[in-house]
Amino acid sequence: MLSVGLIGYGHWGPNLLRNLVAHPAFHVAAVADPSAARRLASREAGHDGALYEDGAALIRDHACLDAVVIASPVSTHYDLARATLERGAHVLVEKPLCTRSSEGEALVALARRQNRVLMVDHTLLFTGPGDAIRQLVRQGRLGRITYCEGQRLNLGLFQPDVNVLWDLAPHDLSLLTELQDELPVRVDAVGQCHVNPGVPDIVHASLRFASGWTAHFHWSWMSPEKVRRLVIGGSDRMLVWDDLASDGRLKLYDRGIAVPGSAKAGTMIRPAYRTGGWEALPMAEGEALARLVDHFAAVIESNADSVADGARGLRVVKLLEQIQFALDRSAATTKKPS
Amino acid sequence: MLSVGLIGYGHWGPNLLRNLVAHPAFHVAAVADPSAARRLASREAGHDGALYEDGAALIRDHACLDAVVIASPVSTHYDLARATLERGAHVLVEKPLCTRSSEGEALVALARRQNRVLMVDHTLLFTGPGDAIRQLVRQGRLGRITYCEGQRLNLGLFQPDVNVLWDLAPHDLSLLTELQDELPVRVDAVGQCHVNPGVPDIVHASLRFASGWTAHFHWSWMSPEKVRRLVIGGSDRMLVWDDLASDGRLKLYDRGIAVPGSAKAGTMIRPAYRTGGWEALPMAEGEALARLVDHFAAVIESNADSVADGARGLRVVKLLEQIQFALDRSAATTKKPS
Repeated sequence: MLSVGLIGYGHWGPNLLRNLVAHPAFHVAAVADPSAARRLASREAGHDGALYEDGAALIRDHACLDAVVIASPVSTHYDLARATLERGAHVLVEKPLCTRSSEGEALVALARRQNRVLMVDHTLLFTGPGDAIRQLVRQGRLGRITYCEGQRLNLGLFQPDVNVLWDLAPHDLSLLTELQDELPVRVDAVGQCHVNPGVPDIVHASLRFASGWTAHFHWSWMSPEKVRRLVIGGSDRMLVWDDLASDGRLKLYDRGIAVPGSAKAGTMIRPAYRTGGWEALPMAEGEALARLVDHFAAVIESNADSVADGARGLRVVKLLEQIQFALDRSAATTKKPS
Repeated sequence: MLSVGLIGYGHWGPNLLRNLVAHPAFHVAAVADPSAARRLASREAGHDGALYEDGAALIRDHACLDAVVIASPVSTHYDLARATLERGAHVLVEKPLCTRSSEGEALVALARRQNRVLMVDHTLLFTGPGDAIRQLVRQGRLGRITYCEGQRLNLGLFQPDVNVLWDLAPHDLSLLTELQDELPVRVDAVGQCHVNPGVPDIVHASLRFASGWTAHFHWSWMSPEKVRRLVIGGSDRMLVWDDLASDGRLKLYDRGIAVPGSAKAGTMIRPAYRTGGWEALPMAEGEALARLVDHFAAVIESNADSVADGARGLRVVKLLEQIQFALDRSAATTKKPS
C-alpha cells in the first residue's frame, strides 16, 4: 500500500482524489488545499487522511508519504515537486509539469538522482483515442507522417494567469511528442486577446520539424462550438480524430497521394489518388484518469517506463516555451494601434 | 439581347455556357477553346455560335459582341480582359481576376474609362450561405466582428501552375472583403509541399487588420476529409457556416463573452458568458452561378453596382499577393535541410 498525499482540491483535484481513493494500491494519507471549504469537501470522497492548508507543510510534516500528487496552480508545481523528490517520495504533477524548461530539467535530473518516479498527468495519452493513436503510430500504420493538424476550441473558462496556450496546448503537445521526438526547427505563432489584454484567448501555431513535416494547432476560448479534432497525414494512411463525431470518433482513412517518380517544380504532376474508404477504430472504454492512476502505481511498484514521465513532461514545456516565444515576437509587431 | 462570347470550355466553362444559353438576356455568339473536342462538346449545350480555337481571335474578329466571359487559365485573364474592354465589350472573368494587382488596377481603370462592366466570377457570394452571410453582416447582426476562421480542405485536384492558395483562397477572400474593407497590416503564412516541390498544397495564413481583428485560413489539397467551414466571431453573435453539416449549414449562435468594465492585464477577469442557443438560418435555393449570370445581365442593362465588380476582384488579388509574399518569405527560412 502506497501512502499518498494530494495537494490541490480545486478543479481537477476531486477527480484525482476519487481515483486515488478507489485504487487498491493507494492509501490517501493527506490532502492539502488553502480553502477550508474545499478541504472539508475532500472528505466526501471518503478519505480519512490528514488535512493541510499548505502543500509545502504537507510534504514537510506528514510522515511516511510514498508519493505526492500535485494539482495546485502551475506556478507552484516546481517548488512542490522538488520538495517531494528531495524528501524521497514519488510525484505525479498535473500538466503542464512547470512553467520553465530549466525547472523541468532540474526536476528530471533530481528524480533520476533520487531514483524516484516523476510523472505528469497527460491524461490524453490514457484516453481511448490517445492510446489508439499511440499504437497506430508505433505500429507504423500511417506510413511516413507528413503533417498534423489540431483544433481544440470552445467558449472557454478564462483563467487569470494562464493563457489559452498553456491551458489547452499541453493535451495536444503530449500527443505530438508521440509522433515526433525532435523539437521544431521553426515555430510561428499568432494570438489574439478578446478578454484580457495580456492573455491571448485565441492562438494559432505552426511548427516545422527538421524532417520537413509540419504541425499546426488552433487553440481558442472564443469559439461558439466545441471542436476537438486532430488530423494526422501519413504516406500510407490518414487519421482523423473528431471527439464529437457521431459516426466514429477515430477514423483511419485509406487515402493519400502517391507521387510517381521524382516530382520537379513546374512540371505537370499527375499524382495517383488513393480515395479508399475508412474504418472506425475501436477504442478502450473507461475513465482515462483511472488508467493513469493505475499506471502511476505500476510504475512505482515495478519501476516500469512511463509514457508520461518527466522527460515527456519536459518536452511539452519546451514546446510551450517555443510557441510562447513566437507569440511574444509576433505580438511585439502586431500591437493594436492606439 | 446581349451577344456574348465564351473563352475557355474546360473545367468551369460548361457551367457558364449552360447558364448563358438558358438566360433570356444572352445570346451565345461564339465559343473559343484550344481543344477541338471541347469546342465540339460545347455544341451539346445547345448554342449555335461560332467556334474559335483562339480566345484573342474571338475578341478581335467576331463582330457585334456585347460581352465576353473568360474561363481560360488565370495567366491569360489579363490580356483577354484588356482586349475585350478595349474593343468596348463588357467582361466577366473567372476568379481570380488576374495574377498581379498592377494588372488588376489597369483593368479596373480601363473598365471605368470605357464605361463597361468588369465583373469577376466570385460565385461564393451568390450561394445561399454567401448571400446570407453578406446580409447578416450588412445588417450588423453580429455586432462588432472580431475574428474570422476559415477552412477549405479536401483531397484536392492538383493543378500544375497554381498552388492551393490561388486555387482555393479566392472563394474565402471574396467573402472576407465583405467583412473587412481594409487590407491587412500584417500577414503571416506557412506552406507545405507534398507533391510538387515548388507548389504548396497546404497553406495556413494569418491576417491582422488595423482595427485589431484577425482572420485565419487553412487551405489544403491533402485532407482525407472534405471541410468547408467558416466561423465569424462578433461581439453580439457568432456565426458558423459548415457546408457539410447535416443539422443546418449556417448557424447563428447567441454566444459570446461580455467583459465587464475595462479589463487590465494580469487582473482576474470574470467575463459574463452568453451561452444561448442557435438558429439555423434560411438560405436561398437554386444554382449560385445562375444567379451570378443573371446579376451580370442586370448590371450591364441597368448599370447597377455589382458585389463582384472589378474593384472587389482586385482586392482579392491584393490579398492573394500579400499571402503569397508571406509564404515566399517563410519558405526562404524553412527550406528542408538537404
